[in-house]
Amino acid sequence: MQVTCVTSRRETGKSLTEYWGFAPLPYELELSSPEPSAIAEEAEVAFLCVPHGTAQEMAKELVSRGLKVIDLSADFRLADPSVYEAWYGVSHRFPELLREAVYGLSEIYAERISKSRLIANPGCYPTAALLPLVPLLNRKLIEPRDILIDAKSGVSGAGRKAEVALAFCEVNEDFRAYKVASHRHTPEIEAELSRAAGGEVKVLFTPHLTPMERGIFATIYVHPLASEKEIYEALRDFYAEKPFVEVLSPGRIPRVAEVRGTNRCRIGLKLDPRTGRLILLSVIDNLVKGASGQAIQNMNLMMGWPEDLGLPKSPVFP
Amino acid sequence: MQVTCVTSRRETGKSLTEYWGFAPLPYELELSSPEPSAIAEEAEVAFLCVPHGTAQEMAKELVSRGLKVIDLSADFRLADPSVYEAWYGVSHRFPELLREAVYGLSEIYAERISKSRLIANPGCYPTAALLPLVPLLNRKLIEPRDILIDAKSGVSGAGRKAEVALAFCEVNEDFRAYKVASHRHTPEIEAELSRAAGGEVKVLFTPHLTPMERGIFATIYVHPLASEKEIYEALRDFYAEKPFVEVLSPGRIPRVAEVRGTNRCRIGLKLDPRTGRLILLSVIDNLVKGASGQAIQNMNLMMGWPEDLGLPKSPVFP
Amino acid sequence: MQVTCVTSRRETGKSLTEYWGFAPLPYELELSSPEPSAIAEEAEVAFLCVPHGTAQEMAKELVSRGLKVIDLSADFRLADPSVYEAWYGVSHRFPELLREAVYGLSEIYAERISKSRLIANPGCYPTAALLPLVPLLNRKLIEPRDILIDAKSGVSGAGRKAEVALAFCEVNEDFRAYKVASHRHTPEIEAELSRAAGGEVKVLFTPHLTPMERGIFATIYVHPLASEKEIYEALRDFYAEKPFVEVLSPGRIPRVAEVRGTNRCRIGLKLDPRTGRLILLSVIDNLVKGASGQAIQNMNLMMGWPEDLGLPKSPVFP
Amino acid sequence: MQVTCVTSRRETGKSLTEYWGFAPLPYELELSSPEPSAIAEEAEVAFLCVPHGTAQEMAKELVSRGLKVIDLSADFRLADPSVYEAWYGVSHRFPELLREAVYGLSEIYAERISKSRLIANPGCYPTAALLPLVPLLNRKLIEPRDILIDAKSGVSGAGRKAEVALAFCEVNEDFRAYKVASHRHTPEIEAELSRAAGGEVKVLFTPHLTPMERGIFATIYVHPLASEKEIYEALRDFYAEKPFVEVLSPGRIPRVAEVRGTNRCRIGLKLDPRTGRLILLSVIDNLVKGASGQAIQNMNLMMGWPEDLGLPKSPVFP
Repeated sequence: MQVTCVTSRRETGKSLTEYWGFAPLPYELELSSPEPSAIAEEAEVAFLCVPHGTAQEMAKELVSRGLKVIDLSADFRLADPSVYEAWYGVSHRFPELLREAVYGLSEIYAERISKSRLIANPGCYPTAALLPLVPLLNRKLIEPRDILIDAKSGVSGAGRKAEVALAFCEVNEDFRAYKVASHRHTPEIEAELSRAAGGEVKVLFTPHLTPMERGIFATIYVHPLASEKEIYEALRDFYAEKPFVEVLSPGRIPRVAEVRGTNRCRIGLKLDPRTGRLILLSVIDNLVKGASGQAIQNMNLMMGWPEDLGLPKSPVFP
Repeated sequence: MQVTCVTSRRETGKSLTEYWGFAPLPYELELSSPEPSAIAEEAEVAFLCVPHGTAQEMAKELVSRGLKVIDLSADFRLADPSVYEAWYGVSHRFPELLREAVYGLSEIYAERISKSRLIANPGCYPTAALLPLVPLLNRKLIEPRDILIDAKSGVSGAGRKAEVALAFCEVNEDFRAYKVASHRHTPEIEAELSRAAGGEVKVLFTPHLTPMERGIFATIYVHPLASEKEIYEALRDFYAEKPFVEVLSPGRIPRVAEVRGTNRCRIGLKLDPRTGRLILLSVIDNLVKGASGQAIQNMNLMMGWPEDLGLPKSPVFP
Repeated sequence: MQVTCVTSRRETGKSLTEYWGFAPLPYELELSSPEPSAIAEEAEVAFLCVPHGTAQEMAKELVSRGLKVIDLSADFRLADPSVYEAWYGVSHRFPELLREAVYGLSEIYAERISKSRLIANPGCYPTAALLPLVPLLNRKLIEPRDILIDAKSGVSGAGRKAEVALAFCEVNEDFRAYKVASHRHTPEIEAELSRAAGGEVKVLFTPHLTPMERGIFATIYVHPLASEKEIYEALRDFYAEKPFVEVLSPGRIPRVAEVRGTNRCRIGLKLDPRTGRLILLSVIDNLVKGASGQAIQNMNLMMGWPEDLGLPKSPVFP
Repeated sequence: MQVTCVTSRRETGKSLTEYWGFAPLPYELELSSPEPSAIAEEAEVAFLCVPHGTAQEMAKELVSRGLKVIDLSADFRLADPSVYEAWYGVSHRFPELLREAVYGLSEIYAERISKSRLIANPGCYPTAALLPLVPLLNRKLIEPRDILIDAKSGVSGAGRKAEVALAFCEVNEDFRAYKVASHRHTPEIEAELSRAAGGEVKVLFTPHLTPMERGIFATIYVHPLASEKEIYEALRDFYAEKPFVEVLSPGRIPRVAEVRGTNRCRIGLKLDPRTGRLILLSVIDNLVKGASGQAIQNMNLMMGWPEDLGLPKSPVFP
């Protein structure tokens, strides 16, 4: 695989090495202004990391020029354009393309991803939440009501920005919730859970910011419809052949450190016999399985390459 | 106030300055072996920071020698000795003293604390969870069922120990849950909520470890029985005269950094209209309001001194 | 003491609580635009935390209106206006006022500070470097040549700014030097060392950024002219009566954690018999003894109050 | 390459996955007790990560059984057994083997490493200090006197141990020097510098602990014997063909974050015209180029494989 083109409106003209301070690739590239025609000439696959709204336009142009497109924005994640509009304040200009797009949760939609030319790469929180929930809802092993997702993210989820709120002295030795009951990943989670459950599912999703660079830890509370053992075995069997999802035996608790730098998701579970609730615990590296790693996994699927090509499985520890 | 005696079995003979590397007091003290008779000679108030089981014995001896005792262990927190025994694996040898002890959640039991000679200083997680919940349950503004407490703590909650699991390279850049559905603060929280609700309350409580030194952030999910505004006003009014509890207007989210180094608890709340759930957010400094600060507040109440004597209100920021 | 007026051009109109998210004072204040006449009406002492260049003007106006002024900028730190101009690129408009200003290194200039109406509050790095060096140079116990200061600072030294370089994900898990051989605190250190030595002293000063919020650790390499013991005793005796400077016995190494949140400076020293060099180790909290704490200490001296009024001596640990 | 055997006296019987909590290899291995005969049967190359003293014995046995040995202890780093004895308090039992061992600073001794059967893998601090210094001393571009190394390390350098001093709450938000003028890497650095200079070189080396997991930043002060440009070009040319050492143009300052997770060393330099000193800045990841990465690089050289086989060059950032 060859990276032929990296674009940035703001940093046009800089080399990758200049921008990062180190060489992220074994060869040098200059950041160029995003021109679909130029991209189309040089590339077979395009990864879109542009704001929502803009991604629609780029995707439309690149797909029509024959590229496979993996969009990391939210533009093609929500099948219902009115939900998209309600949460993002932008109307969807390409509903046909939207219908064609496949939600890129690799383990769930591998088959469809492999045949698609436009992938909506999932958000980081949805990835962490959906991997444990989708198979359980699908098999009716948990109730589709009262699902509560309390998720904690490292700071890199916010991107590389000049903002006081992201400064070391604001984030370090702090912990906070944010966008309580209003985070845009909510409808994305609900859309996929509804599809899995075959009926409308509502979730309560609370994101938090924790003083670490990478990682998401999702603590998910559900009502079980089967025993802890049955639920464990169902999850374990569902992911048995999947290289990046590990299901831990009941009571074992995953740690973010165990997936740092990898494309893995680790899932733990425990029944609370006192309240009858099942607690699902899910960890990913938000920058890998939660973003660019899953994007590469999707490219691998689209290109018919081994699913785990170029994707690390052993964590950077410590 | 004068500190007359500091004990430590393991570090007997060391000076405080030697042990800490700095002088925590304006005068020097030598760590001595804990001898109730010697303590009783020199002190009016004793703070017990010894393991559960041991605390019972010490409390008994010191109270009978006329001291006011503030016990930071769990030995007098659970009114029902059988619950204590079930969770701590130790039987209670002084049920009479247990009946006499007052649970030291200062804002809730100020009246009783001021008349007591034995205070069970609350755990850190219970303090963070109970301050928002008790007044609401008491006023029947939330349902007593389905209460979910997802709490995140800094590392200092584990104490100063030589343990691989507490090492910098294990904790930093990690996030994990621990003691899922089995933490000993669960019965303590339930006991107090049951008392407030006037009936049995069960909670699901999940503690997590976050890479910061101090602080607890509790995200609490409840079913409201009144509007967001009514609940906010009830909490605000309840704490209006309390120097250390602040209730933020609906939608404002507290941060751990805002209470670091203080004896404060800050409470936020938000209704999720989509699911009908109310989210309560509560932050404290686990070492101050969650431990020694509340202990001093209780001493102030017991001694008839101003409640906030010697207790910081402005955070160490950054 | 009463804070009567807090100014901010950028945040005019906000309350202190709004700006910080918490109440830093027991009463509320609104940030106002800096107007010398308004300030003069309400205050006896003014602390200037404005950019260099601007501070000159403000100081001139406030002093002429009868206020005692403590300037935290660099405008009055360098007695020689040409050195100021060379390093700061601004000319000094008030050379007379500059001659009158006293360098606010409290332990060294207490006498003069107490009689002054304009204090140039020292920089954070100079404070950490000068406290061990000035008495030794003054007593000719170390050579005035080949002084090397390798200093490490927490991130708060950079202020509260929206900058990518200060973002959590840039600073955490990183360590870097900056402004190598070109930091503006160099002439400030040299000016004071030259005064102490009675002749020109040049130093090599290298600042570094370390992933913590507060604190400076200065490792200083000098050629000793006396034994380790003599140097230790000289320092110890010099600071014997000073409440905020502690000299550790030879070989004991200070830690930043021991002074966090305090106005203290701790000094360690060790002779390397193999190379004959003496290593001086000095730690301060850059926000307290390195900035606002020393400013308050200077106010105390100017007002004839106890030097340590309102200044913490016990660290926030952990 | 296949890992055939991993030993641990303390953890014998545990699987690697059990010990780490994750699978560091694509296949499972059980930790076994170190038995040279068993190791010799299964392996061609052995990496020794055992205490000094023990390493001697293991190396002797394994080499005599025909294995190539890469020793990560200090046992074969110091050519002079009396220096070894003086600093490590252990006598060297195999002086002949010691004479044969090659110091594994890959870029400097590649030729000899490729022909050796016993490599003394360098310490982390020596690697960071020697890479910039050795070529300059060798070409007489800096003076062999008055070399000062002020180095800062992440916490992982101390290993995975249950120690209060390594606990999160001790290390985080702290900065300290340790083993001032007495660290055992001093004679190792001196031995190699003396060899490069063709005469005895003494250095003053001060290690510090900084609150990050990985990385070493070495600030090195020397007297230059040529211009900044000449020194830069000499270093740049020396490392021109070396895949893991980068020399930055004068004035550019390397960051630890730029080498995190890689086997790289980045070197910066700057002349201070005011004092005439040259400042060399060197960064490595202490766990990779400073330990296991360099060990693998040495194995590659010994086996005649490409030097950079299996070794990452792009940092984990953030």
